[in-house]
Amino acid sequence: MAEPLIYVGLDVGGTTMKSAAVDDAGKPLSAPVIMATEPERGQEAGLETMCETIRRAVKAAGVGLADVTAIGVATPGLMDIKAGLILDPPNLKPWKNVPVRDHIRQVFGKPTVYQNDANAAAYGEFWVGSGQAAKSMVLFTLGTGVGGGIILGDVIVEGEHSHGGELGHLRIAMPDRGRLCGCGARGCLEAYASATNVVKRAREEMAAWRGATKLRQYYTANDDDFTSKHVFNLAAAGDECALKVVDDTAYYLALGACAVISSVDPEMIVFGGGMVAAGESFRSRIDTYVRQYGLPFPTKTVKIAFASLGSDAGFIGAAGCARLAVKAK
Amino acid sequence: MAEPLIYVGLDVGGTTMKSAAVDDAGKPLSAPVIMATEPERGQEAGLETMCETIRRAVKAAGVGLADVTAIGVATPGLMDIKAGLILDPPNLKPWKNVPVRDHIRQVFGKPTVYQNDANAAAYGEFWVGSGQAAKSMVLFTLGTGVGGGIILGDVIVEGEHSHGGELGHLRIAMPDRGRLCGCGARGCLEAYASATNVVKRAREEMAAWRGATKLRQYYTANDDDFTSKHVFNLAAAGDECALKVVDDTAYYLALGACAVISSVDPEMIVFGGGMVAAGESFRSRIDTYVRQYGLPFPTKTVKIAFASLGSDAGFIGAAGCARLAVKAK
Repeated sequence: MAEPLIYVGLDVGGTTMKSAAVDDAGKPLSAPVIMATEPERGQEAGLETMCETIRRAVKAAGVGLADVTAIGVATPGLMDIKAGLILDPPNLKPWKNVPVRDHIRQVFGKPTVYQNDANAAAYGEFWVGSGQAAKSMVLFTLGTGVGGGIILGDVIVEGEHSHGGELGHLRIAMPDRGRLCGCGARGCLEAYASATNVVKRAREEMAAWRGATKLRQYYTANDDDFTSKHVFNLAAAGDECALKVVDDTAYYLALGACAVISSVDPEMIVFGGGMVAAGESFRSRIDTYVRQYGLPFPTKTVKIAFASLGSDAGFIGAAGCARLAVKAK
Repeated sequence: MAEPLIYVGLDVGGTTMKSAAVDDAGKPLSAPVIMATEPERGQEAGLETMCETIRRAVKAAGVGLADVTAIGVATPGLMDIKAGLILDPPNLKPWKNVPVRDHIRQVFGKPTVYQNDANAAAYGEFWVGSGQAAKSMVLFTLGTGVGGGIILGDVIVEGEHSHGGELGHLRIAMPDRGRLCGCGARGCLEAYASATNVVKRAREEMAAWRGATKLRQYYTANDDDFTSKHVFNLAAAGDECALKVVDDTAYYLALGACAVISSVDPEMIVFGGGMVAAGESFRSRIDTYVRQYGLPFPTKTVKIAFASLGSDAGFIGAAGCARLAVKAK
């Protein structure tokens, strides 16, 4: 009997990195190993932490390094995917031009692939998550920012400059009228629909709201601890002002989805990140707006869903990318 | 010595269809054969005209049917690319559910591929036109409407519902504020940048223009024959009002290009259709706006160009799609 195929996925974030070994069916062989990224300790230390996280993940899986077929590593942008380089990402400062892929390949002597973290998460959901039955899928990741990944069959749309699926910077309003985004431009989806900007819009909405709203009450008492989660909770409890903020968020996300439909026309669009805790009522609002504002023919059948792998999507997807590369040979 | 490979491309439009045999390097072996589509004569007649156009193209190339390796057919949407069906396109009425691919395959006994016309044109430009040195390319076709095609390496982004690259319906403004598009939605790129809408905006602009403009003068004398070409000509002659219309057109097209950069991040974006006759000054305006409003990293190097195959892109690209399918096997 042939040995089972095992892939290790590593998902590097600004605060922590996560890794686990995953079998050929996408099932993690253990809970993920989590270590602090501590980019401020420098990139040498960072590379060593990556290797150590991988080593511990292999151990946690109860296998040996010899059992590992390939390794997949995902990091946040800016990056050069083809060259395997972290370039200069804002949340990994002061790292610059870090040869992640080649370093890990050398240390472990295994085929190693490198991918953008949102692309990896998208591939994870496509491989074994919400999109596993789909032939093409687009993921929007909703967090402090908005990211994304586009998967068309076996093709992960990396882009010529490693910027494929930068869906947070799809513009949903004209620059002269759009909200200001953290990137400096106006009108980006992220400027409307990231967790940070849901809170910002909630503040604006409550300031202009006539009559009572629990949003204002809550905010006045807890302004240091006022997150998009509270907005969604108050909406779920029936607060009209919070409901408007949530409904607008669904509308903005739907406009992002419509742009993706007009460009790549996927079978399925998946939303992941903290906001999906808001559940079916939020999903169905997005769904309704997509069908209202999207191209009639594709929106007859395009599927709108929430992600199912949570924060494991990144390392599972990274492992999946490694598997894809090995199988393609 | 092996026989040279020959592919026949057929590009079916609402008014005419064009076909030529093309060699393995994308060179047409004759001027294209052009026949009237006359959709009103019904789909049986239409299929027969397609076959006759192909037959004449083979003859015009000075070869025999036995020399043809494969056939590629492109038609305007709505369509089902995978099934090889024309569904219900507005400019081929009253055709409905026409099994183009299988009919042509049966008549000629050759491998036959089917593609959307704008996708085929994009593949033509990618194969042997402006994009021949690029690894990925997006084409915007500017005509009565705005269409598009996305090519990523050997992948033509057909979309799950045959709507990949529907770039005219990328929304560049929010629905509540956007211009009304022929499709019924608001804010579509086509509602701003198609030839028809350039004329519409020119009329609005001259109505609001303080002071003299040759645009108004020309329009008053020739309102039945006032096209986007006249707007571009008057802009080239220095008319300020016409210049504003042209500059706005470049801006709107750039916003479409920016959306494509944020989604698939291509190496090159190509604009084709009548408006490219406006030349380098128009191209460089689009280019400037793309770099002003697009993602900073990809727009450092993304190439903005005009198409080079003119109206031959469709049949050359259709032949190229046939070649691609045969080579992939």
